[in-house]
Amino acid sequence: MELIREARPHSREKLKSNLIEWFHWLLREAELYDVRYPVKGAYVWRPYGMKIRRNVENLIRKFHDETGHEEVLFPVFIPYEFFGKESQHIKGFEKEVFWVSKGGEAGERLVLRPTSETAIMPMVKLWIQDYKDLPLRVYQIVSVFRAETKMTHPMIRLREISMFKEAHTVHADKEDAERQVREAVEIYKRIFDEMCLAYLINKRPEWDKFAGAEYTIAFDTILPDGRSLQIGTVHYLGTNFTKVFEVTYLDADGTRKLAHTTSYGISERSIAAMLITHGDDGGTTLPPKLAPIQVVVIPIYYGEEEAPLVMPLVRETANRLNEAGIRVYVDERADKTPGWKFYYWELKGVPLRVEIGKRDVEKRQAVIARRDTLEKYAVSINELVDAVKQLMKSVEENLRKRAWEELKGRVVKAEDIEVAKAAIKEGKVVEIPWSGDNDCGIKIQELVGADALGIPLDADASVGGYDLRDLACKERRAELWLRLSERY
Amino acid sequence: MELIREARPHSREKLKSNLIEWFHWLLREAELYDVRYPVKGAYVWRPYGMKIRRNVENLIRKFHDETGHEEVLFPVFIPYEFFGKESQHIKGFEKEVFWVSKGGEAGERLVLRPTSETAIMPMVKLWIQDYKDLPLRVYQIVSVFRAETKMTHPMIRLREISMFKEAHTVHADKEDAERQVREAVEIYKRIFDEMCLAYLINKRPEWDKFAGAEYTIAFDTILPDGRSLQIGTVHYLGTNFTKVFEVTYLDADGTRKLAHTTSYGISERSIAAMLITHGDDGGTTLPPKLAPIQVVVIPIYYGEEEAPLVMPLVRETANRLNEAGIRVYVDERADKTPGWKFYYWELKGVPLRVEIGKRDVEKRQAVIARRDTLEKYAVSINELVDAVKQLMKSVEENLRKRAWEELKGRVVKAEDIEVAKAAIKEGKVVEIPWSGDNDCGIKIQELVGADALGIPLDADASVGGYDLRDLACKERRAELWLRLSERY
Repeated sequence: MELIREARPHSREKLKSNLIEWFHWLLREAELYDVRYPVKGAYVWRPYGMKIRRNVENLIRKFHDETGHEEVLFPVFIPYEFFGKESQHIKGFEKEVFWVSKGGEAGERLVLRPTSETAIMPMVKLWIQDYKDLPLRVYQIVSVFRAETKMTHPMIRLREISMFKEAHTVHADKEDAERQVREAVEIYKRIFDEMCLAYLINKRPEWDKFAGAEYTIAFDTILPDGRSLQIGTVHYLGTNFTKVFEVTYLDADGTRKLAHTTSYGISERSIAAMLITHGDDGGTTLPPKLAPIQVVVIPIYYGEEEAPLVMPLVRETANRLNEAGIRVYVDERADKTPGWKFYYWELKGVPLRVEIGKRDVEKRQAVIARRDTLEKYAVSINELVDAVKQLMKSVEENLRKRAWEELKGRVVKAEDIEVAKAAIKEGKVVEIPWSGDNDCGIKIQELVGADALGIPLDADASVGGYDLRDLACKERRAELWLRLSERY
Repeated sequence: MELIREARPHSREKLKSNLIEWFHWLLREAELYDVRYPVKGAYVWRPYGMKIRRNVENLIRKFHDETGHEEVLFPVFIPYEFFGKESQHIKGFEKEVFWVSKGGEAGERLVLRPTSETAIMPMVKLWIQDYKDLPLRVYQIVSVFRAETKMTHPMIRLREISMFKEAHTVHADKEDAERQVREAVEIYKRIFDEMCLAYLINKRPEWDKFAGAEYTIAFDTILPDGRSLQIGTVHYLGTNFTKVFEVTYLDADGTRKLAHTTSYGISERSIAAMLITHGDDGGTTLPPKLAPIQVVVIPIYYGEEEAPLVMPLVRETANRLNEAGIRVYVDERADKTPGWKFYYWELKGVPLRVEIGKRDVEKRQAVIARRDTLEKYAVSINELVDAVKQLMKSVEENLRKRAWEELKGRVVKAEDIEVAKAAIKEGKVVEIPWSGDNDCGIKIQELVGADALGIPLDADASVGGYDLRDLACKERRAELWLRLSERY
């Protein structure tokens, strides 16, 4: 394998200067997703986008199945009577819930699930008898509905979230539930690692936790314009739901006890984050493991009479890759030029392109171009499968490395409000000394003009021995770092 | 492989005498599906049921993907303005549609899709430019909603149909659309064949076609109590939808033409039919290709001290099966007897059971019991993988053969109303001479006290040279056979 063109990746200027506009462009031009559906915040997955989504769903399923979660499917309808049982939950969701009414009639009091804790609890109560039935771990991948009043964005802020993976678990006690919370964090790390996403792990402040949770741990990624995007959350729900739904179990000691629960969710936002993080002004790069097409083979010839010279080797190459289990596609379209095809498949994020022309046939070689760097290599046909495997690994590692480098470069500490404000303006996540007091935290948000993501769980949250003051409540000693950023 | 117990299948008396009660029993005891969810016509898929469903979904996907269909995903919400465009469609669905209203507010006019023709048409209009974009074939597997006023039944009559596979295709002309209709029928045959279901293919009478269709072709299976169940439908929609949504294309001759469309759907009803068709008073038998567990291995020993004698061969057997790509599960539960386990896995429909006891270890053999016939075979360990493969094939063929024999035995011709009524009472599908006139057909339904399934497409529909009269309109010559049955 011989390098024949140095790295010269596409620019990211358009992407960074107006991220949402760029994203609309990508979704449209790469035929991933159609934003023209005539209902606000509800969009259409087109075939190519759907194939990527299926790969992501299968990844999510795999990691849940392997860790003792079982897939289930609950109804969309939740009786209002159940939905309203947990007081904090209803308070948090009531304003954004869709109601259902039967065709014309004065109907039942049904809501469309915005999340399924209150659908699952009454059934879990029936499934659990004694401590041997615990822990219980189920998940489903479904549509959930939120009547967003804010501006909606494709895949990012939706009224129908159509790929909501929600896991719900039930445990004998707090200790086991919190062990599950930690395991869920590990599962999410693995999923995002496979998607080559970088993330901050934050314990959300009290005022921003999930409605009904004891606490919420969130995964936030930072998009190329410096705004953060929540891509996953894990909640410890304590006994808040089991109390009102009377979910108890018979313990080994013969007494009935309240169970503890957790829930955790991710959605198609993670796919948006993947497309954007690995995006550039030429399109996107898909992590090879998740790409519907891993290698596109493009025959290069001029005039139909040259086709027979090139096509046998094109087919041989495709067969070899296919037999090695690589998802390969030959773009044989006669009415498109090679250059047009390069542009097309770069847009769609296919990780590797194989070009085969007349001169390559003479040398029994092919040229491989990687999508992330646009580096090109000449490879002899006999080494092609190995080279492709090696380059797919390299693309994956590079995407991950780039994402982490960019994220790490965006997190800065600020011990002064003005410094913090300036950093936010530059698209940074700032870590600010905080006493831990909620009122002070909310005041910090106002002073900085950004949203609190919470305290770091992926780094030392404590300010340690430094004698720092809470930036909003100067009379208080700072105990923790509070992360803030602009958010989507 | 030596036969050591003759066939002695479970009785089917309970199943036949009260099918719905039996089905509730199966769903509950086999932990497939929970009917206790507190909303009418909305149920919960439990983990074991969900695994079966996933296998069926993957089968459906495979056969659609292989025949040029692409998976998409459209929103649940349809603006009423679109839903109401096609006059026959809205007439047919208006009464059973769920409306959505935003939380508390006077909301938009949105309905929950009962089927997606009117969601898909406005987008298809945007996707199709000229004849080269045709045919277009998409499908999705989604929840659809019907406000049933009739009695609901688990998996069979639902208000949330959660596994609705709907395909929608767009064509240049009637000829190509009707070719697609025939192809859809072939795809459905393949799907139902893999599920070992037997079916009648009927062209529904005018008064029972899909709202908005030119004609509807339906697959009906006959359940063991003699009532038929519609498990799939294929519709030729003509230009009914493309006209009102203005879906046109530029033809090769430079003129704009209206496209023709089809749609076809199947749902979790097919799974209900599968569980019931292969059911008996001991549970059900799953077709091996669709079974989450194909072989359950049960160690047979009495007293913990015997376990070390048996378990090494149990594990060796499981490993061998696993390595051969067979889905195998070892039931090692120490607190359950072998007899209890036999009962449990027969209930759940696992196609083959392997028993290994002390005497088997001495002979290096295992005993295989097949679920459909309960026949038992002794097989040497070295031949086990081959024997299992052979028996799985045999179970599949037997399920299919039994289903077809039962179905064929249920279809009778009746040239007299009283004969027809008696046959319906005995759980038959009757074929009655009919003129083809709609009023006469509706009258035949009333006279016989059964529902018309339509005219046969899987047999000669014409009465041929026989000089038969329409049974309701004696003055008319009968042209066709009209099938009638009691229906679910």
